[in-house]
Amino acid sequence: MNYKKLGSIIGKIMFLEAVLMLLPLTVSLIYREPFSHVLAFLIPIVLLILLGLLLQLPKAERNTLYQKEGFALTAVSWIVMTLFGAIPFVINGNIPNYIDACFEMMSGFTTTGASIIEDITTISRSSLFWRSFSHWIGGMGILVFVMIFIPESSDGSSMHLLRAESPGPQVGKLVTKMKATTRILYLIYLGLTVLEIIILMLDKPIPGYEKDQFFLSLLATFGCAGTGGFGFIPGSIELFPPFSQYVISVFLLLFGCNFSLYYLLLIGKVRDFFRSEELKVYFGIVITAVGFVFLALIGRFDAFPQIYTTEEAFRHALFQVSTLVTTTGYTTTDFNLWPMLSVTVLILLMFCGAMAGSTAGGIKISRFIIALKGAHINIRKLINPRYVPNSKFEGKKLEARTVNDVFAFITLYFFIFLGVVFLLSFDPVNGQTVTVVSDAGTYKVTHGFLSNFTATLSCLSNIGPGLEAVGPYSSYAGYSSFSSILLTFTMLLGRLEILPVLILLSRRSWKKV
Amino acid sequence: MNYKKLGSIIGKIMFLEAVLMLLPLTVSLIYREPFSHVLAFLIPIVLLILLGLLLQLPKAERNTLYQKEGFALTAVSWIVMTLFGAIPFVINGNIPNYIDACFEMMSGFTTTGASIIEDITTISRSSLFWRSFSHWIGGMGILVFVMIFIPESSDGSSMHLLRAESPGPQVGKLVTKMKATTRILYLIYLGLTVLEIIILMLDKPIPGYEKDQFFLSLLATFGCAGTGGFGFIPGSIELFPPFSQYVISVFLLLFGCNFSLYYLLLIGKVRDFFRSEELKVYFGIVITAVGFVFLALIGRFDAFPQIYTTEEAFRHALFQVSTLVTTTGYTTTDFNLWPMLSVTVLILLMFCGAMAGSTAGGIKISRFIIALKGAHINIRKLINPRYVPNSKFEGKKLEARTVNDVFAFITLYFFIFLGVVFLLSFDPVNGQTVTVVSDAGTYKVTHGFLSNFTATLSCLSNIGPGLEAVGPYSSYAGYSSFSSILLTFTMLLGRLEILPVLILLSRRSWKKV
Repeated sequence: MNYKKLGSIIGKIMFLEAVLMLLPLTVSLIYREPFSHVLAFLIPIVLLILLGLLLQLPKAERNTLYQKEGFALTAVSWIVMTLFGAIPFVINGNIPNYIDACFEMMSGFTTTGASIIEDITTISRSSLFWRSFSHWIGGMGILVFVMIFIPESSDGSSMHLLRAESPGPQVGKLVTKMKATTRILYLIYLGLTVLEIIILMLDKPIPGYEKDQFFLSLLATFGCAGTGGFGFIPGSIELFPPFSQYVISVFLLLFGCNFSLYYLLLIGKVRDFFRSEELKVYFGIVITAVGFVFLALIGRFDAFPQIYTTEEAFRHALFQVSTLVTTTGYTTTDFNLWPMLSVTVLILLMFCGAMAGSTAGGIKISRFIIALKGAHINIRKLINPRYVPNSKFEGKKLEARTVNDVFAFITLYFFIFLGVVFLLSFDPVNGQTVTVVSDAGTYKVTHGFLSNFTATLSCLSNIGPGLEAVGPYSSYAGYSSFSSILLTFTMLLGRLEILPVLILLSRRSWKKV
Repeated sequence: MNYKKLGSIIGKIMFLEAVLMLLPLTVSLIYREPFSHVLAFLIPIVLLILLGLLLQLPKAERNTLYQKEGFALTAVSWIVMTLFGAIPFVINGNIPNYIDACFEMMSGFTTTGASIIEDITTISRSSLFWRSFSHWIGGMGILVFVMIFIPESSDGSSMHLLRAESPGPQVGKLVTKMKATTRILYLIYLGLTVLEIIILMLDKPIPGYEKDQFFLSLLATFGCAGTGGFGFIPGSIELFPPFSQYVISVFLLLFGCNFSLYYLLLIGKVRDFFRSEELKVYFGIVITAVGFVFLALIGRFDAFPQIYTTEEAFRHALFQVSTLVTTTGYTTTDFNLWPMLSVTVLILLMFCGAMAGSTAGGIKISRFIIALKGAHINIRKLINPRYVPNSKFEGKKLEARTVNDVFAFITLYFFIFLGVVFLLSFDPVNGQTVTVVSDAGTYKVTHGFLSNFTATLSCLSNIGPGLEAVGPYSSYAGYSSFSSILLTFTMLLGRLEILPVLILLSRRSWKKV
């Protein structure tokens, strides 16, 4: 391991975090919060700068990074960001327990949006800003962001980093220079973000929050852009006016698209844009899912508390599908007690996730497509042993290696899933009763298998809410510290798509080469 | 497709079924059941012989089978066996609905043990015998049985059949001749069966069933040997004396072992027997699982109704672990309301299954081992791109192809799983309340997501009971005909390990070569 080089990059990441923390610090000053809330950001900023400087001191002999170092660096960076990012919550007392604060912060950076906060109204504005802002930062990747400041090397170091952090089975360069690619992607990200804030500002404000329209639009957009989904007022997006809910649905779906596709649009290659297989399947899935959820809601397939008008049923179906397929986790209504068909469709979307190269989590649609094509090839080979596969994906020949990697990924995902569910079954929270207050009324649920199952799914796919005791109107506060730490790691595993974290944990990575 | 040859083999399978049906016919005569019950078996026997003869008439031009034909033949055989095997239940009125009868019969042949019968005391002895006997037949495979009567061909036709029907990632020949292998395996199967019946006869009879001890020992052994698990008296194995429950546990675990290992024992290669990796992991899993389940029961980790003595807690833990890891589905107590740790361990065992080459269903332990080794190889390759894998499994080099096949299998298993859960969510039974009467008392459960989830798992892994509304003291009677047919197919997919059924359904298989 090239420790000195790794240290130097991690130091730079710490500078970045210090800079990013200036924003919530400003928020704290603008809203004239008590001094402890200003200090909450000031202290970690100073710490980050000092430690970051310290890490710059040793000079690395080798300026390049091996692939394994790229992977390990990625995992360490996210952990470092989380450990320091959690400090403000402890200092200002919003989340006194540091383990809980780390859970919250990892949930922020990994764009999960699972929260251990039971009453969101107790949280200060600067904390709310920092939480939601972390989604926006995490959405495009921390290292990708840092790469803009690192001199481009010709040996592929930066490519290793991008590969480790980018979601999806393949990483493509848009333009030959890595840095140029990153800049274009960030500009698209920024552009969409600004656009959403402006459109949200056009709607009427939420009753009772008239003065905060800009602040809330900002937070809503951060959670949407990063597909994170932290709530910031009671009931997530429930109180937003219908128009805003539609706007957020549409932007969620937009942020679930591969960002490279927008580049194609920008340079006028509209035909290539519409030729994307994954895009077609993505919208096919969304339309089908909305259809089924909507049908089950207006058909009242099985009894559930809410009475929706047709428009409401459609809006809630569209919103919940958009929020879960993009693994965001915002909600406009309590889907915990919805008909089985609706609930099952939503759970399947949680496994699926949106497009590769977006800010969404989950297995990703491209992997599903590749796996199905791979299965098809396997069956054709059994039918005719002399069959030579010539399947294509996105216009390129589908290599056996890609298919095998996808199969391996899904298997690993499945194993880790089962392992986490097993470990959660030790938690003393199991069997306890939780009272839920939502637009479905006040009802009691028992923390059962489905709670652990969906908590795992939600963290591994970076979604946020689950069902039953971790439903959209509950929090993860019931879990013990052990389970919180476990789920914190599960979020990281999900966000970095498993391998970087495993490499970090592998003893062999740390052997001298 | 070589239709004439396929027809001729299917005809032979029909003869076999006719011969096998003579046994329940005899049971019907011994117990002097009403004539309709005798007729119930007589009519299908005559039908099977006539149709079987008809299928012998055309002479095949080609005497060999391609691999795809072997796969398709396997799937068709199991369907034919089920369609005819279900007739008796309709004629004697035990299961008047033919779709339900097919579900029951497929559940029998695939050694699932899921039942749509709500009150087992209404079923005649001949029907009970036929149900349980179908487990014994299905356990070792229908085609393997037929192969004993088919002339050995040198082109590997019979190997194709064995590969299509045998559970597990690899098929090994014990001796050079296929037929000899089959005979040895069947003799071991028969020997263990007889041994279990004898030992069960040594115990005191079940109070109230004194006259039926032999009959019940026979049925219990059939379900155990085939790892099927149909109940035949109320409460599955609950009323059996403790000694019998221990005996059945042990034999369950024995039938979950790869039968080739017994051959090694028979020819005195004791050291090779103990060298089996899968065997070690199998017993490791069993011991660990029993430990956790037992601990959660005596520690009363979370509240559950039953009060067990330490011996009872151990016995029930051992029995439930044995019955679920071998995908049998017998039960001695209601585990539906057990602590979360116990329930989660049991669900994980349902995914896992026992050893390849046994009569058990599920993913199989060898696949888990191979997948984990494969994942390890992938990670080491990322750490060091020049790494050349030299992993071994069962003493042989682990080929990349085997690893990829296992990854592909698990992915397909996972996809089919999600697909079936989705289709079950349309069933009107969802949201309905079911009353369960068991040793845990009388309680109500709602047919929720967990019911569909475990019903799918149970059918795909050929287990029998699930949890919640399809728990060990409930039946599958609540599902609609559509879901029954779907689950019938799911059982077949599970038993034949997916590919043969997919090949049967593939349009391309039926194209003229």
